[in-house]
Amino acid sequence: MTAKLKTAVLGATGYSGMELTRLLAHHPRLEKPILLRRDGGGNGARDLAEVFPGLSGNGGYPLQPLSWPELKRQDVQLLFLATPHEVSRSLVPAAIAEGLRVIDLSGAWRLKQAKHKAVYSFQDSDAVTAAELTKEAVYGLPELNSGRIADARLVANPGCYATSVILALAPLLQAGLVDRERGIVSDSKSGVSGAGKEPTARTHFVAVADNLSAYSVFNHRHLGEIVEQLELGTSELIFTPHLLPIPRGILSTVYVHLNRKMKSEDVESCLRAFYANRRWVRIFATPNLPQVQFSLHTNYCDLGFCLAEDGRRLVLVSCIDNLLKGAAGQAVQNMNLMYGWNEQEGLQ
Amino acid sequence: MTAKLKTAVLGATGYSGMELTRLLAHHPRLEKPILLRRDGGGNGARDLAEVFPGLSGNGGYPLQPLSWPELKRQDVQLLFLATPHEVSRSLVPAAIAEGLRVIDLSGAWRLKQAKHKAVYSFQDSDAVTAAELTKEAVYGLPELNSGRIADARLVANPGCYATSVILALAPLLQAGLVDRERGIVSDSKSGVSGAGKEPTARTHFVAVADNLSAYSVFNHRHLGEIVEQLELGTSELIFTPHLLPIPRGILSTVYVHLNRKMKSEDVESCLRAFYANRRWVRIFATPNLPQVQFSLHTNYCDLGFCLAEDGRRLVLVSCIDNLLKGAAGQAVQNMNLMYGWNEQEGLQ
Amino acid sequence: MTAKLKTAVLGATGYSGMELTRLLAHHPRLEKPILLRRDGGGNGARDLAEVFPGLSGNGGYPLQPLSWPELKRQDVQLLFLATPHEVSRSLVPAAIAEGLRVIDLSGAWRLKQAKHKAVYSFQDSDAVTAAELTKEAVYGLPELNSGRIADARLVANPGCYATSVILALAPLLQAGLVDRERGIVSDSKSGVSGAGKEPTARTHFVAVADNLSAYSVFNHRHLGEIVEQLELGTSELIFTPHLLPIPRGILSTVYVHLNRKMKSEDVESCLRAFYANRRWVRIFATPNLPQVQFSLHTNYCDLGFCLAEDGRRLVLVSCIDNLLKGAAGQAVQNMNLMYGWNEQEGLQ
Amino acid sequence: MTAKLKTAVLGATGYSGMELTRLLAHHPRLEKPILLRRDGGGNGARDLAEVFPGLSGNGGYPLQPLSWPELKRQDVQLLFLATPHEVSRSLVPAAIAEGLRVIDLSGAWRLKQAKHKAVYSFQDSDAVTAAELTKEAVYGLPELNSGRIADARLVANPGCYATSVILALAPLLQAGLVDRERGIVSDSKSGVSGAGKEPTARTHFVAVADNLSAYSVFNHRHLGEIVEQLELGTSELIFTPHLLPIPRGILSTVYVHLNRKMKSEDVESCLRAFYANRRWVRIFATPNLPQVQFSLHTNYCDLGFCLAEDGRRLVLVSCIDNLLKGAAGQAVQNMNLMYGWNEQEGLQ
Repeated sequence: MTAKLKTAVLGATGYSGMELTRLLAHHPRLEKPILLRRDGGGNGARDLAEVFPGLSGNGGYPLQPLSWPELKRQDVQLLFLATPHEVSRSLVPAAIAEGLRVIDLSGAWRLKQAKHKAVYSFQDSDAVTAAELTKEAVYGLPELNSGRIADARLVANPGCYATSVILALAPLLQAGLVDRERGIVSDSKSGVSGAGKEPTARTHFVAVADNLSAYSVFNHRHLGEIVEQLELGTSELIFTPHLLPIPRGILSTVYVHLNRKMKSEDVESCLRAFYANRRWVRIFATPNLPQVQFSLHTNYCDLGFCLAEDGRRLVLVSCIDNLLKGAAGQAVQNMNLMYGWNEQEGLQ
Repeated sequence: MTAKLKTAVLGATGYSGMELTRLLAHHPRLEKPILLRRDGGGNGARDLAEVFPGLSGNGGYPLQPLSWPELKRQDVQLLFLATPHEVSRSLVPAAIAEGLRVIDLSGAWRLKQAKHKAVYSFQDSDAVTAAELTKEAVYGLPELNSGRIADARLVANPGCYATSVILALAPLLQAGLVDRERGIVSDSKSGVSGAGKEPTARTHFVAVADNLSAYSVFNHRHLGEIVEQLELGTSELIFTPHLLPIPRGILSTVYVHLNRKMKSEDVESCLRAFYANRRWVRIFATPNLPQVQFSLHTNYCDLGFCLAEDGRRLVLVSCIDNLLKGAAGQAVQNMNLMYGWNEQEGLQ
Repeated sequence: MTAKLKTAVLGATGYSGMELTRLLAHHPRLEKPILLRRDGGGNGARDLAEVFPGLSGNGGYPLQPLSWPELKRQDVQLLFLATPHEVSRSLVPAAIAEGLRVIDLSGAWRLKQAKHKAVYSFQDSDAVTAAELTKEAVYGLPELNSGRIADARLVANPGCYATSVILALAPLLQAGLVDRERGIVSDSKSGVSGAGKEPTARTHFVAVADNLSAYSVFNHRHLGEIVEQLELGTSELIFTPHLLPIPRGILSTVYVHLNRKMKSEDVESCLRAFYANRRWVRIFATPNLPQVQFSLHTNYCDLGFCLAEDGRRLVLVSCIDNLLKGAAGQAVQNMNLMYGWNEQEGLQ
Repeated sequence: MTAKLKTAVLGATGYSGMELTRLLAHHPRLEKPILLRRDGGGNGARDLAEVFPGLSGNGGYPLQPLSWPELKRQDVQLLFLATPHEVSRSLVPAAIAEGLRVIDLSGAWRLKQAKHKAVYSFQDSDAVTAAELTKEAVYGLPELNSGRIADARLVANPGCYATSVILALAPLLQAGLVDRERGIVSDSKSGVSGAGKEPTARTHFVAVADNLSAYSVFNHRHLGEIVEQLELGTSELIFTPHLLPIPRGILSTVYVHLNRKMKSEDVESCLRAFYANRRWVRIFATPNLPQVQFSLHTNYCDLGFCLAEDGRRLVLVSCIDNLLKGAAGQAVQNMNLMYGWNEQEGLQ
């Protein structure tokens, strides 16, 4: 039996970081993860169970200050960052220089093209290194990039909305079946944990309950990574996020025009073929459609569709748990690929 | 001071019927409405407060059996039907023959074209009369048809989803600004009261809470009335309903391509001009967008929009309370027009 | 027809203040209320509809700076304070000195006894005046104190929890039917609007949804006013608040031991007799019990009960809308009494 | 490595049965469980994933008709019943006669005393056997009865409410610290899955959302098992269930008078000592209290408390996931004891 991998997590006090910690703590290939604290982060908690009392009773999740020498001393190989993108942007160069592999859950390293990156407005202390790492970083969507993820030093874990939209569209787009000129619409809806743990007027219970609202129409940050990964022009996709009165889960309803007349069976075949060997995508056969509940607390992306009688107009429905397949679960899936393990280890 | 109008309601034990009863009971131009009971309806309740205890303490809402002679004796002029469409279809001919004016909240009389009516599969006992009444019935959307509503004997009160979608699209379509060939999408989301009061597996709390689901894609009954009223081809609109984990409220996100480049101010002007004299439509100026909460417990339809930088791609957001502007409130608005009263009486 | 009363509201940007503004704006005896802004309050909004867009479309709710001379110039007679208790404590002496009558929705003037007031830790600039006003202030629970409210200059509007608990207990206690030595328990549950509009970790949607929590056990501020009004010893009542995953509404389950064996009919008679002429209390006959939904968006306090077979152990259930009977509605009810109007005006 | 145990589940199409199936399918000591179907049960589904699509993608959960010979042929040792109590009552004698061990999740075998059993009104075909099995059945609360569970042929898995109340009270009662004459109150609140999967007017989303209601006051079925297990007189405990607008989770707020003055540390010590070796009870130290969220999706019972300054009046708070510690998780815990495994196997 081989030695277990040593990992560390910075940002465990956020929703994604907490879910990630839970997953890593039960992963059969890993030692219990080391949880790191930035100055001022996590409200000065000494143990993650102070922030999330539901984690108590499992022997403790102590938080220790981030220190590169200490990580080296503890023989940590892999660092997860569940931090704001500014923090990830500033820490990753040092982490890579220290010889760590990194899976970053923020948006800091997802975008290659300058026009999209503008939405993040980074202030890099070393622009050359930052540019090199941007180029090197692998977009960590295993269903699209498993080969490159396996060898990556720096994995940019995808955004939650982006995961749901890209996985719905990739099969048809790569098969050349979409009439891109007529425009694609992704009407996406997310639970509130996607907005983060910071209390704001938007996340107040009274503002969310019994409500639904659209936001960031035409200018949500995830639009850039979706069009980059799908090689779409920005004007070929309208992406509209909505805030749902639920704690977690995403449902994207995606509208495409096909460039030839198809049958439902053909659409289903296209999806099934594309995801033939992928453990974490489930295809629903018409007339069944996925619902948010089905994939909650799992790493699945559930895909279904309805085809109009004309065989041309297609509605795809894509559901994920934004904290798992949309964040922490996908990070574990990426780790599994990076270390040559089965893609589903630690995720069942 | 003129005598108050006498009205009756059949179907007060449903959600829309209950809201209607509340509105009518407080309407300054009306006597307290007479509530009618069908055989077997309403679980044998003698008073509506047995079904909705929140109505108690206001002197009672007794239910009496439906009887045409009794309605005549009580001098009832106007009958509201908040009944299943089959019931409305079978009762309206008799009611009209008795000299009553009728506002029907069901889908029984909304559709003119046979191809759309198929979704309701009526069994008319007198097909000739039914055909005549179908032709005569006025689609009761006051913002489009106020003149014809004023003189109507039979008003077909619009569907809730249909109200939200038609009001969003009518201004731009009538101004000829929409590139209809590229297709219109209405991604609509409704609270659970829209599914009716019957307990089913779909409306069970555990099936709805923490969830979102799409349903009736390409074949929802409201599609017919939307395309009829907007004079669209069926294939020019994709309408996708979703079930939201909230009790009431609808938000429709509507996607159109404009056939010329516009500015936000122009879009806003188009909407404001169309609804210039209408009390119950509110226009939100970019970047403000309506949310479901804003119109809950009101008769407003709230409209907002975002225009892409290219000036061509437009996202409209339309919100209503499905039980008010989408049902009972709109019925009262129609009554106000039919009797020459101010459109807002009894609705504030 | 007499001139309409002129009123002003400070604190309209909070939940209670907003509900109060809505009620006052539609009250038949009032001019449209003047809304006042403190420095730094309401995020600098010029109109209340900027804070609550659901209020738009009614001609505007402008906010003006608080100025005593300006209020005098506008002939304002009655001032509502929906402000934090510290603010109420510091403003009321000046308002009274200016000749205004005041209804204060905060806890600033509710408590007579020093031992209870400690929970608020006021810093009065003029201790003598503050003590006099404390003595003069009338606890504004109309079902108990209608006579004194009618003549009051300063009405201390009750706390939301306190309203639900006091109205449940007052009839039996005043009839001497409760075995106080065995202890009374009020297990109370409130919707989140009771915690105010400030975003905090406690009011974040993800912290509240799918959850229930007890808080402030043995030390909630409303305990003092409950025991004062009911003339109980502090140790005779355990009051436990809980935070419900709903926006509004309170349900208190109240447990008492009777000091003689009773029948259900007797308990019901006791309640009905006590509230015989009160418009805003509804009594439910066993086995019916009130639910939170029944009184939402009304000014009712709904009371029901179950008596054990032994005729001694009694469970009372008391429901209110915390923003109406628990705050703004009760304030209007108090105003109606202060000006000799019907108790239900403007509340239907 | 020893052979894996073969188990079967009848009633997997209900909420508890589904959770149980998920747990058993991942339990390291078990073969995949055999799922049994009664005539007419489960809507004729051939696979559990038809009923719960969230279960798809794991190789299938086929349902087979219940047949004793077939169970013997498949070498099943242990049968779980997640069926209505009438079904459990009629099936268990045969199952025991077939040599199976049984864990029954219904109320059929929990009560020893006739006066309590009346609430279930069984119709036993063989009264003698039923009486013997009633006597033999072990109440499956591992924290109280682990020894007897280990040897049991028939385990009556406790009710969800009962689990939360008994675990809160047992330590203090067994230590003789409670003044039972003054009466104990358990004000308990449950999520909707506790009411079962059958759609009813009570479980309709619109009836539950934005609501809270008390029900079955003084006559809930779980009262009997609570007082039996705690050896209380029926009149010594008031147990009031409430329906919460959440899918799952129970919080019981339990009020006791102590018969001597205590300190918080002593209460905590009493609880910790009682549950010293128990894996699935967590004690929270004052002022921390458990919340429903903390134990969701776990098998924990979380206990906390607040002691009044007088050292006599104690409020205990007890939280469980009603489908896990309150049903399926506890069933697995019982199985672990019955087969000599670690109590936490398959439950993490």
